[in-house]
Amino acid sequence: MGMALSLGRRGLGRVWPNPNVGCVIVRPNENGGRVIGRGWTADGGRPHAETRALDGIDADGATSYVTLEPCAHHGKTPPCVDALIGANVGRVVIATGDPDPRVAGKGVAMLRAAGIDVITGVREHEAREDMAGFLLRVTENRPFVTLKLASSFDGRIATATGQSKWITGPDARRKVHAMRAGHDAVLVGAGTVRADDPTLTVRNTGAVRQPVRVVASRRLDIGAANLLATLGDAPLWLCHGANVDAQKWADLGAKTLACDLQGRQIDPVDMMHKLAASGLTRVFCEGGGSLAASLLGAGLVDEIVGFTAGIALGAEGTPSIGALGLDVLDDAPRFDLIETTQVGADIMHRWHRASLHLGQKTHPVGPISR
Amino acid sequence: MGMALSLGRRGLGRVWPNPNVGCVIVRPNENGGRVIGRGWTADGGRPHAETRALDGIDADGATSYVTLEPCAHHGKTPPCVDALIGANVGRVVIATGDPDPRVAGKGVAMLRAAGIDVITGVREHEAREDMAGFLLRVTENRPFVTLKLASSFDGRIATATGQSKWITGPDARRKVHAMRAGHDAVLVGAGTVRADDPTLTVRNTGAVRQPVRVVASRRLDIGAANLLATLGDAPLWLCHGANVDAQKWADLGAKTLACDLQGRQIDPVDMMHKLAASGLTRVFCEGGGSLAASLLGAGLVDEIVGFTAGIALGAEGTPSIGALGLDVLDDAPRFDLIETTQVGADIMHRWHRASLHLGQKTHPVGPISR
Ligand SMILES: NC(=O)c1ccc[n+]([C@@H]2O[C@H](COP(=O)([O-])OP(=O)(O)OC[C@H]3O[C@@H](n4cnc5c(N)ncnc54)[C@H](OP(=O)(O)O)[C@@H]3O)[C@@H](O)[C@H]2O)c1
Ligand SMILES: NC(=O)c1ccc[n+]([C@@H]2O[C@H](COP(=O)([O-])OP(=O)(O)OC[C@H]3O[C@@H](n4cnc5c(N)ncnc54)[C@H](OP(=O)(O)O)[C@@H]3O)[C@@H](O)[C@H]2O)c1
Repeated sequence: MGMALSLGRRGLGRVWPNPNVGCVIVRPNENGGRVIGRGWTADGGRPHAETRALDGIDADGATSYVTLEPCAHHGKTPPCVDALIGANVGRVVIATGDPDPRVAGKGVAMLRAAGIDVITGVREHEAREDMAGFLLRVTENRPFVTLKLASSFDGRIATATGQSKWITGPDARRKVHAMRAGHDAVLVGAGTVRADDPTLTVRNTGAVRQPVRVVASRRLDIGAANLLATLGDAPLWLCHGANVDAQKWADLGAKTLACDLQGRQIDPVDMMHKLAASGLTRVFCEGGGSLAASLLGAGLVDEIVGFTAGIALGAEGTPSIGALGLDVLDDAPRFDLIETTQVGADIMHRWHRASLHLGQKTHPVGPISR
Repeated sequence: MGMALSLGRRGLGRVWPNPNVGCVIVRPNENGGRVIGRGWTADGGRPHAETRALDGIDADGATSYVTLEPCAHHGKTPPCVDALIGANVGRVVIATGDPDPRVAGKGVAMLRAAGIDVITGVREHEAREDMAGFLLRVTENRPFVTLKLASSFDGRIATATGQSKWITGPDARRKVHAMRAGHDAVLVGAGTVRADDPTLTVRNTGAVRQPVRVVASRRLDIGAANLLATLGDAPLWLCHGANVDAQKWADLGAKTLACDLQGRQIDPVDMMHKLAASGLTRVFCEGGGSLAASLLGAGLVDEIVGFTAGIALGAEGTPSIGALGLDVLDDAPRFDLIETTQVGADIMHRWHRASLHLGQKTHPVGPISR
């Protein structure tokens, strides 16, 4: 199952709206077993992991390890359950169930009805963590949200005059590009687009599938020259409010998503629903401070990745997180440490939402090899 | 020399105004040598490490490893050079020279004149780092300054309503008490005394020698109830400006240090000179944000110890570092990472001033076992 999980992780950011599943077929022998097939969800989400693992092998009587309950419904491809039954595997070991109502429990039932031995719940917590984006989209109608904060050690992301290049070093920036590639989309607020005119593409990592670039801008009063100039490389989606000339942007090649307002800002919960409805399972928010505060305040941030540089910018600098409207410490959003490590001259620290329950087990503290 | 260095570290925070020296006496034999004597500077600074290491042993022809050039002048104790010569040691290995003009080079010269083989510069960088407080006091007339920042991951040390108990967890707080014990004094600004009425003693670490508590308060308009109530446990020093009724505080048992002003604040450079003149070699500043900014702005912070909690407080919270008056990123104070590690539910990260040159070698990045 460990191998199946790591194969599944290859699909992170590349398979949406499908889950990033991994599958390993093992022929049992006197030494415990021999791997005869390996597969993971292909880019774009199809073919599925099981189909790829079974491709071209004789799996008669073999054991299939799969990170998610095999699908039982006819979608654009025939159900994986049929493929496993057709291959006459003897046993299927599943990490976690699929909450999709078209599958939920049916996959397991169909396998058992075909006389296949089924074991579930093996390394379930890790599987639920790896596929959290898919699971949240199905169960809560929103993507998994990672918030990146790259700041000075006093929590500033720019000087008073708006200088933010570069606070963290080249190794941290390379890591950020790799993280973008592991998400379906990169999200920023209009303020960041106005201040930095970013490109938000994945560069220098050998990634082939570019994440969608998403901008939250109520009135679409952004220049976005670099985002528009790179439309050939990666899609641009714009989350905007009512009474805005969105057609102009659609004509330029962007996808526009009208979102509800909450006061004078885009309602972050509705924005996430709209992004999930458009297929996104994993969103990487890169700021700025206002958008970060809005997402944190709405309880929408599942993971925080902090990069902290050995530099002090002082209280006039732009805060990494805007106003949260908190009075008492007990109301502050809390996160549990996953890891802290050195990245070039900076430190990286990852945290999970304290109320993030991905499985029965509490989250293990310590480096996670992703 | 490794053993001598670690013995020397036992004196951190306990031997001011003297250096925290370590000494090991080795009897050479066919296996390289056998340790026959060990010593470190005693609490309060006397007796010296060499005297203690030589106490009660026959060191005739032995090798003495000592972290600092042995003293050559008659102070309250006879010079260590005489003790080494008197013991008839065959060789003295020294980590680093003593810049004190009464010693500088004279210790080595006197040993050599007595026919003793002298080697210098062995693990010099580590020795200079361990004794940085003593060295800075002699060469720059100021103590080594460690700045502690215990903040949320967005760099806040209190909520808008002033709540700051507890942002970091019990393990981090225990670590802070151990760090206090490794410094000669703990320093805070008047704002922190007014807001928190702290005690600033070392608790629950088994430490016997309490660091001096120092408060920077121009007009001495502080209550300081808890600092006064614990005068029996640890000294209280007050750095204040001109035209202040300091006598009132002296009568209560505090030591008062009149410092120059810089605008409407105490001049941080003069304050450090005054503290060094009173014997301090290692100062642990615990904030708040205004004092931290003042020390950073004056280039007086040698080490930063950050504790970061998995909590977001938002832009209304009190910043860990006050206004620095920076416009461009290039002018920001820069620090080099020494280590980052998990402490309970929080992370701890240590940084050294980028321009801190303690020896020829650049500072090794990675955990330092202190
Ligand atoms: N160091 C780094 O890694 C980093 C990363 C990002 C940004 N930055 C810096 O951060 C600064 C920008 O930060 P910022 O806080 O001003 O801007 P921001 O968070 O990027 O954008 C805020 C703007 O987004 C729009 N918005 C739409 N919906 C929102 C919602 N629900 N919540 C909040 N905003 C929403 C609003 O503009 P409309 O009214 O137009 O919709 C709002 O003014 C720049 O200086 C940039 O350089 C640094
Ligand atoms: N989380 C933590 O670890 C932690 C640690 C410390 C503090 N805090 C919080 O921080 C807040 C206090 O911070 P703060 O920034 O208001 O106060 P602060 O830095 O502790 O004290 C500032 C005051 O110190 C005096 N001062 C004298 N010389 C100074 C100089 N050179 N530079 C700056 N100040 C000088 C000034 O008062 P006079 O004019 O009276 O001299 C000044 O107003 C409190 O809410 C406290 O709870 C949190």
